[in-house]
Amino acid sequence: MARLNDHFLKLKAGYLFPEIARRVRVFCEAHPEPAQRLIRCGIGDVTEPLPPAVIAAMHRAVDEMAVRETFHGYGPEQGYAWLRAAISQNDFRARGCDVADDEIFVSDGTKCDTGNILDIFGPGNKIAISDPVYPVYVDTNVMAGHTGAANEAGAYARLVYLPCRPANGFVPAPPGRHVDLVYLCSPNNPTGAAATREQLAAWVSYAREHKAVILFDAAYEAYITDPALPHSIYEVPGALECAIEFRSFSKGGGFTGVRCAFTVVPKTLQAQTRSGEFHPLHPLWLRRTTTKFNGVSYISQRGAEVLYSPEGQAQARAVIARYMSNAKILREGVTKAGLKTFGGVNAPYLWVRAPKGVGSWQAFDKILNEANVVVTPGSGFGARGEGYFRLSAFNTRANAEETARRLRELRW
Amino acid sequence: MARLNDHFLKLKAGYLFPEIARRVRVFCEAHPEPAQRLIRCGIGDVTEPLPPAVIAAMHRAVDEMAVRETFHGYGPEQGYAWLRAAISQNDFRARGCDVADDEIFVSDGTKCDTGNILDIFGPGNKIAISDPVYPVYVDTNVMAGHTGAANEAGAYARLVYLPCRPANGFVPAPPGRHVDLVYLCSPNNPTGAAATREQLAAWVSYAREHKAVILFDAAYEAYITDPALPHSIYEVPGALECAIEFRSFSKGGGFTGVRCAFTVVPKTLQAQTRSGEFHPLHPLWLRRTTTKFNGVSYISQRGAEVLYSPEGQAQARAVIARYMSNAKILREGVTKAGLKTFGGVNAPYLWVRAPKGVGSWQAFDKILNEANVVVTPGSGFGARGEGYFRLSAFNTRANAEETARRLRELRW
Repeated sequence: MARLNDHFLKLKAGYLFPEIARRVRVFCEAHPEPAQRLIRCGIGDVTEPLPPAVIAAMHRAVDEMAVRETFHGYGPEQGYAWLRAAISQNDFRARGCDVADDEIFVSDGTKCDTGNILDIFGPGNKIAISDPVYPVYVDTNVMAGHTGAANEAGAYARLVYLPCRPANGFVPAPPGRHVDLVYLCSPNNPTGAAATREQLAAWVSYAREHKAVILFDAAYEAYITDPALPHSIYEVPGALECAIEFRSFSKGGGFTGVRCAFTVVPKTLQAQTRSGEFHPLHPLWLRRTTTKFNGVSYISQRGAEVLYSPEGQAQARAVIARYMSNAKILREGVTKAGLKTFGGVNAPYLWVRAPKGVGSWQAFDKILNEANVVVTPGSGFGARGEGYFRLSAFNTRANAEETARRLRELRW
Repeated sequence: MARLNDHFLKLKAGYLFPEIARRVRVFCEAHPEPAQRLIRCGIGDVTEPLPPAVIAAMHRAVDEMAVRETFHGYGPEQGYAWLRAAISQNDFRARGCDVADDEIFVSDGTKCDTGNILDIFGPGNKIAISDPVYPVYVDTNVMAGHTGAANEAGAYARLVYLPCRPANGFVPAPPGRHVDLVYLCSPNNPTGAAATREQLAAWVSYAREHKAVILFDAAYEAYITDPALPHSIYEVPGALECAIEFRSFSKGGGFTGVRCAFTVVPKTLQAQTRSGEFHPLHPLWLRRTTTKFNGVSYISQRGAEVLYSPEGQAQARAVIARYMSNAKILREGVTKAGLKTFGGVNAPYLWVRAPKGVGSWQAFDKILNEANVVVTPGSGFGARGEGYFRLSAFNTRANAEETARRLRELRW
């Protein structure tokens, strides 16, 4: 009798986006005319086309696949050397981070990597996550059996939740207790908060003291506008001994439909075996990658490579600037509407406090029905998201302006 | 103190292909001139360019990504509906298999899927694999903690090895003992054997009796030439209640560098919870896919879709016919050389018995040094592969002919 993985049965239904879709559908069926003016500011997906340099590079790559002499079959599972070199040079060594080419693992997505990374960690680790949080961190730990059951508020036993509040700028400080693994996401989805160098230094110091590993998700790194903020955790001395960093071309290069990302596992990073010895994690992730993955599409990798050319960088930055102008327009609109707003400066997300006494789903319904705008209820990201909603800057300029106008007119 | 997954430390070094590369390098350095005539018949990667219809479809898809109105961001994690519909219709319903569109999960590779599928199974399953075997099945179970340590011959405790021999046509019959999960690969890598309908029916009958799940890897299905052989395990009545099937566009469409594959999880397939209830596996794989995967490149999916058009099918079949002509040429050459040869009729691999008393690596060295051809030593696929070597038909016609000529001239 084949046995299934019972831990899956602890998972809460993937409630958030299906429930949003259901409410939007009900609204559209009941109100055909307002439905036509519906603006979606909910989902965190890019809307602008790919930079022309990427399009050209991918056309060239497709053409190479048409000719025997330039055809590419299996590539290295960890990514082509030319892409790994471009990444380590531009994203790390150019910023003073001592990351080698072979510490870069090219992959098909940060979502995949933040889930798959758990393969190389054993059971029994005490795991900390922020609240609110990107749900994938939680769900993959539930699947792996690292948690107990969920309580009524949706919090799982054995996870350590780190509250994110206005008081800590939505960046949690290290806890007063011991943990072994901690997920940090900066710039943050959903709150839009970005950690300062001092905040990351406190975490690196904690991790080194506790021999903990930081899983640092920097998928939104390209949206940082404040020059004082670090783009990589490796800008903090000591981080190469305690952190794995996840990066993506999805948001920075518009690659959500193209699929290319990467993970950095420094060779100096160690964890403990059952018998108490320290052992580097790099060979484990290398073995995991070569055994359970077959590399990213050659065409996608050529598309990613060109993002490091001067032309590609300029084009990608122009798209990001456009989204960040949307964020500014939305921020001004929401602030004029009298709502307390966070994020949207170093991240494409705004984290908006609904008026006192208004819950996340109440706010969602009111904004859908009266402004005909779809937002994301903050409670979908965890108990501490209750009373907030997330606004995404991934949209056209016209939609951002119209959303700002409608939110200003909304009476609570 | 973060704890690593100790099971990784049980893995044998990924010995086979690095060791082949090492010996080839030594040979080339010592013999610069013969090195120039080196022919690689070792690695199982396609060599022919992509079909023109695929190239055209991918160019169109790249162009769509350049314009806001036709840009594609995140797609459904399970694959686009148009691709899932084309797959289920052409690969299954057209062959009388009652597979629904939403039982198809588009992925980036069969290697990934056969590894990742273990996420949905619990501990304590008794697992059977063939010997020789595609090493990924073994290594992913070691990583997941489903085995004990390896013995000197490289066999892991707690795995059930099913010997593949000339006497059973290299297709093992169900064992006389109970197992819960069994990997079957047909057409087989490395032996080139393809299971008959009767052989699969015996496995389906066994699995239903034992409430076991068959993990059926049909990545080489497109190479079947015998019209009597089943292409899918679902052609056997009852298989929809006991089998997961893995398919790939890698070998059939030349997609090893493009990355697109799929897995079929029928909704009628169940496994047992810890408390003894039966529960469908489909929702678990759906949850796994939506949580730990972000879908396949839009461009790759459009490339795969066109393989189902009459034009795409004709072009892909022409490439496969070319490889299978290579297989025929190699078979004739090796047979004339007096070596007993299996496979190469319904698979792009030949499984060749070295002369009596000659081990796999001895044969490898002799063929490398005297014929300047690189093969794959059979012992790299398991203890029962000792005394064999694998020849791949993925090559140009000229190389296949020259390899056949050289092997005929070789004196053992």
